[in-house]
Amino acid sequence: MADTWATSGALGIDLHLEPTAGPGLRRGLTDALREAVRTGRLGPGTRLPSSRSLAADLGIARNTVADAYADLVAEGWLTARRGSGTHVAEGRSAPAAATAPIRRPRPRPALDLTAGTPDLSSFPRAEWLKAARRALNAAPHEVLGYGDPRGRTELRTALAAYLSRARGVRADPERIVVCAGFAHGLRLIGTVLRARGARTVAVESYGLPEHRTVLNRTGLATEPLPFDELGTDPADMGQAGAVLLTPAHQFPMGAVLHRDRRASVVDWAVRTGGLILEDDYDGEFRYDRQPVGALQGLDPEHVVYLGTASKSLAPGLRLAWLVLPAQLVEEVTAAKGDVDTCGVIDQLTLADFLTHGAYDRHVRAARLRYRRRRDALTAALAQHAPEVSVSGIAAGLHAVLRLPPGTETSVVQAAHWQGLSLHGLAHFRHERATAEPLDALVVGYGTPPDHAWTGALEALCRVLP
Amino acid sequence: MADTWATSGALGIDLHLEPTAGPGLRRGLTDALREAVRTGRLGPGTRLPSSRSLAADLGIARNTVADAYADLVAEGWLTARRGSGTHVAEGRSAPAAATAPIRRPRPRPALDLTAGTPDLSSFPRAEWLKAARRALNAAPHEVLGYGDPRGRTELRTALAAYLSRARGVRADPERIVVCAGFAHGLRLIGTVLRARGARTVAVESYGLPEHRTVLNRTGLATEPLPFDELGTDPADMGQAGAVLLTPAHQFPMGAVLHRDRRASVVDWAVRTGGLILEDDYDGEFRYDRQPVGALQGLDPEHVVYLGTASKSLAPGLRLAWLVLPAQLVEEVTAAKGDVDTCGVIDQLTLADFLTHGAYDRHVRAARLRYRRRRDALTAALAQHAPEVSVSGIAAGLHAVLRLPPGTETSVVQAAHWQGLSLHGLAHFRHERATAEPLDALVVGYGTPPDHAWTGALEALCRVLP
Repeated sequence: MADTWATSGALGIDLHLEPTAGPGLRRGLTDALREAVRTGRLGPGTRLPSSRSLAADLGIARNTVADAYADLVAEGWLTARRGSGTHVAEGRSAPAAATAPIRRPRPRPALDLTAGTPDLSSFPRAEWLKAARRALNAAPHEVLGYGDPRGRTELRTALAAYLSRARGVRADPERIVVCAGFAHGLRLIGTVLRARGARTVAVESYGLPEHRTVLNRTGLATEPLPFDELGTDPADMGQAGAVLLTPAHQFPMGAVLHRDRRASVVDWAVRTGGLILEDDYDGEFRYDRQPVGALQGLDPEHVVYLGTASKSLAPGLRLAWLVLPAQLVEEVTAAKGDVDTCGVIDQLTLADFLTHGAYDRHVRAARLRYRRRRDALTAALAQHAPEVSVSGIAAGLHAVLRLPPGTETSVVQAAHWQGLSLHGLAHFRHERATAEPLDALVVGYGTPPDHAWTGALEALCRVLP
Repeated sequence: MADTWATSGALGIDLHLEPTAGPGLRRGLTDALREAVRTGRLGPGTRLPSSRSLAADLGIARNTVADAYADLVAEGWLTARRGSGTHVAEGRSAPAAATAPIRRPRPRPALDLTAGTPDLSSFPRAEWLKAARRALNAAPHEVLGYGDPRGRTELRTALAAYLSRARGVRADPERIVVCAGFAHGLRLIGTVLRARGARTVAVESYGLPEHRTVLNRTGLATEPLPFDELGTDPADMGQAGAVLLTPAHQFPMGAVLHRDRRASVVDWAVRTGGLILEDDYDGEFRYDRQPVGALQGLDPEHVVYLGTASKSLAPGLRLAWLVLPAQLVEEVTAAKGDVDTCGVIDQLTLADFLTHGAYDRHVRAARLRYRRRRDALTAALAQHAPEVSVSGIAAGLHAVLRLPPGTETSVVQAAHWQGLSLHGLAHFRHERATAEPLDALVVGYGTPPDHAWTGALEALCRVLP
């Protein structure tokens, strides 16, 4: 009898039924099936298991199931056609819970120039699937079990080689922890800092408000550092136990942290035992300036390097990485939890992508595409809005457009009326930042798919003063 | 010039260099490259970018790069062969950080009968890759962006239909939250309970110690419930705000929660506003007993249903799901964090697996395979260890083997000496459990790959009294 499961397996579905007690098994099964259809648990058109298969599952005679099916066909709840099996009839079920209206996440606007998302239409799907096949076929079975909470060895090794080569990070696979996106990594670090007694993290006057929220949720306050034409000024860190910086390409202002300030922040860390959290969110994308290596290379024992695949590939992968000072590895791994890690198939695929050169190829192609968009943006602005100065365009996927004083709010409003989504600089400003507020737009030129780019650029030019 | 990036892209790798200041660019570049090779940042055999490509990246003349390469070839740091480019010479670099010895996770023993992991060699790799291709090719680009923190709609909808049909769960996609494994889901619930003021969760006298640890880390204490021949006794919940149960198949004892006790625990929840956490870890695997539906079906507003792909597919996917009472959805989603979710490709693949019947097919085939193993286990025990009674074998991937009083520790020790990994029942016992301790082995017959199963079974028979 056991073999009927295998035989029926080719078409069988699993069906949970609890035949009610009553004057016989046939009646109980009939009632249970009718109830499942009536309440919508079995939706219209669902194909039922064969009577042989269901009988084997329930441990009852096949005829009992066949009789129950026949009863329900007679009652109109089911339909039976020779050769195509027994199905739930249309139009008999109550609205099922599963068909309740789904609150969808806010749809993306037609024209989207918010910063922070790459062009999702350029994700290398075919290459990724090819790498997934290669990686999964080559992997030993153990890979699919519970793994190292730091992430797969294959990925940490590939990342160490890549980050060392491409970003000047002093990386050791032992010190890398793979996490589910930048925010996850920041939360882990925040948790560890808080557990060590830190209360405050110094942050830049301009930055992603979501990052400040992540830190707040771990119990840490954020304190803004002054910002001027040389970038963020880390001269006075106050009581902060750590500082979150975007040294290679300030987000969103676009400046490179001045070399004196790089040195001074490392000095501070060494002197006080403080920790530098280096957000290298778009280190892959630089166009026409001298490369700026990771700050981490200056002092791996005082810098946590945070990188992510969200800009270089896609946020939906939920893959990011921390390169940690030796003394933090255990605590961060513990904060992550023993099994709270990322899916191994994506991890192995990214490792394959890195080691087979597919990552470099993709980044280079993307860099060229984004650079062309940046050039189109600056050309369009020069022609249509010559008063607007553009900055922060030597790298990354966004630019800052300076506006006449007092006009930011109304320009952002006008953009939204045009169906164009973007943020003013105020969105990124720390609530206690002290520098004179600037009026500006932050334009993510990497975000739109190719077919929407020209339209978004035209809409932008229309709303500029 | 911009196009050189695309042209060189086919073979180019990204290389971070910061030429040192000095008596000329060529010298600076040569020094920087030599340093990168010497310190191991550029490993032996690494292929360097073409001189054209590196020159474009650094914004310097191609000849300068070619000259620097030539210098380093002359010095023996690099090798150049016509047609295959310039490579780092073998044997020149210091031991790189990346080659530091890697602390590998404990290797699995040759013979593994610990419970909790399915046979990883039966993971349907080809089917999974096929589904991944289908799902990714069909998905709109937005899928790859930042998504709904509850998880992809496609997966939540597919899970709602499956859980309703196969497990009798009253599921609505709106109330499902996808998480990175059971422990992640339990941590989210624990965090929310603690934030609501709960201090204690009642647990079973026998269960996974890891789950108690997860609850402890959220700030909750655990209090064991009595256990007898009817299963866990929830008569006195004390001050607990919630109870964690395995109603369909007690882990590890294997009993089904008695129907009176099912009713009584739901009564308790309704009366006190308490929460039932239903761990349905292996609901897919039942063999020759009447099906037991999810407790959640009795009262969806007081039960959190927790399911996982770790037993039915593989732990490495890190995919699990919560079906939540309406009042908890927002808090659990907030605890999860806005972007702390699972990779979308795996989510879409599992959705495809469920809706195309591949999940049911895989589970049915696995069920037959595990049932055969169970039959082999009971037959071998009847022959070689007739004194040992076996229980908990009507479902699941493990069995409990009762031992003569006082022998558990020595039998487990003997097993380890034979290279056979398994746990005694004491491993699962709550430190404050009150029932008389039983001597028993918990044998995970699902764990070994097919080729190791017979050997593991023979080793088991050898160590039994």
